[in-house]
Amino acid sequence: MADKHLSTQFDAELSGISNRVLEMGGLVEAQVAQAIYALSNFSSETANQVLQQETRVNTMEVEIDSDLSGIIARRQPTARDLRLLIAVSKTIANLERVGDEAARIARTVQRLVNTGVSSRLRVPVTDLAFEADLAIALLRKALDAFARLDTGKALEVLKQDDQIDQEFDGLLRKLITYMMEDPRTISSSIDLVFVAKAIERVGDHAKNLAEAIIYVVKGTDVRHHSVEAVEDAVR
Amino acid sequence: MADKHLSTQFDAELSGISNRVLEMGGLVEAQVAQAIYALSNFSSETANQVLQQETRVNTMEVEIDSDLSGIIARRQPTARDLRLLIAVSKTIANLERVGDEAARIARTVQRLVNTGVSSRLRVPVTDLAFEADLAIALLRKALDAFARLDTGKALEVLKQDDQIDQEFDGLLRKLITYMMEDPRTISSSIDLVFVAKAIERVGDHAKNLAEAIIYVVKGTDVRHHSVEAVEDAVR
Repeated sequence: MADKHLSTQFDAELSGISNRVLEMGGLVEAQVAQAIYALSNFSSETANQVLQQETRVNTMEVEIDSDLSGIIARRQPTARDLRLLIAVSKTIANLERVGDEAARIARTVQRLVNTGVSSRLRVPVTDLAFEADLAIALLRKALDAFARLDTGKALEVLKQDDQIDQEFDGLLRKLITYMMEDPRTISSSIDLVFVAKAIERVGDHAKNLAEAIIYVVKGTDVRHHSVEAVEDAVR
Repeated sequence: MADKHLSTQFDAELSGISNRVLEMGGLVEAQVAQAIYALSNFSSETANQVLQQETRVNTMEVEIDSDLSGIIARRQPTARDLRLLIAVSKTIANLERVGDEAARIARTVQRLVNTGVSSRLRVPVTDLAFEADLAIALLRKALDAFARLDTGKALEVLKQDDQIDQEFDGLLRKLITYMMEDPRTISSSIDLVFVAKAIERVGDHAKNLAEAIIYVVKGTDVRHHSVEAVEDAVR
């Protein structure tokens, strides 16, 4: 009975920590969406709001990390429970980086608003918002997959990340064309190149989350594997 | 006696895993140096060598991660030992990313060699090599600090990372000037902007290593702290 009781408490701790990861995930997802809203509307105010939330995300990372080393020390988990805690540690590092990318975009918006933006840059900004929609949807799917430990959904994330990479390549070519046609847009175009890169990285982080989920459920480390090899591992 | 024996074995396992982290660190440090050599000499061959080592670095990351979850499950470490293993997990993730940055630079070199590089870009390439020297020195110092668990040296790393960030800002401004003066260099200048960014990130990874060392020794998570606050924690 005592064992059963302990194990129920432990389960509660594990699901508690998973919920906080999802909360952190929801927060950084909202940050990215807000940063892109700030960009699309050249709103310095919204950019400020994104930057104000950075501390909260950082604090969450540090707290969750501290909780999970506490759980490992007290509960001495093995097998799948240990894998889950290790995956949480990697996942929150990725989520914190997503928050960093959102902050990076927000700071770029502030600079663009201060220096004044050529109306020519409206078109690439629309493309950036499209790339960002893809990345945010991918991040949300990865968080859903984490909530349910759903390897099928995790696999979808791995497959769809390519689309964001292609979007990035297309955007980069377009921005280079703008710069060549009108060298006065070079400085702000470079800013947008970095925004495009930040969004592409959000997709990479979603992919890392998906790999961590497969590791928890299947016990297989599928990083650096081809999608085909991952499909085999998940089946 | 049995306990003593077990603990000695455990110590051997811990120092074994630390040594492999240092080996992985040495490897990615060499990769960055080689990638920059390839850039400075526009050598497609050296760039290929960098790319060939990517698999080895990735394999090392996966193996060390697997070893350390094995050690946690078997040894059920607490306190400083557990912190060391958690720090190893974060450190190898950073080192793998350093390897990624080296590969990114190597692929850029291949593209530049294929498309032909304007002689005007020789000057920024020299500046990039200087930025890279700083980043490689910082990474080496972080690895030294890790080998000795030397928080004083770790603190130096945190302080010196700023210098690389400033180098990056200067380089970016210079590259923008080149692009404006000669729009034909835009495409390859953008490539160099990404190289500069990759080098700057090597510095960031060295900083993350330094923070992990302070966490192991002092038990304090100093991420997102000001340098002054970290100084207090280390004292």
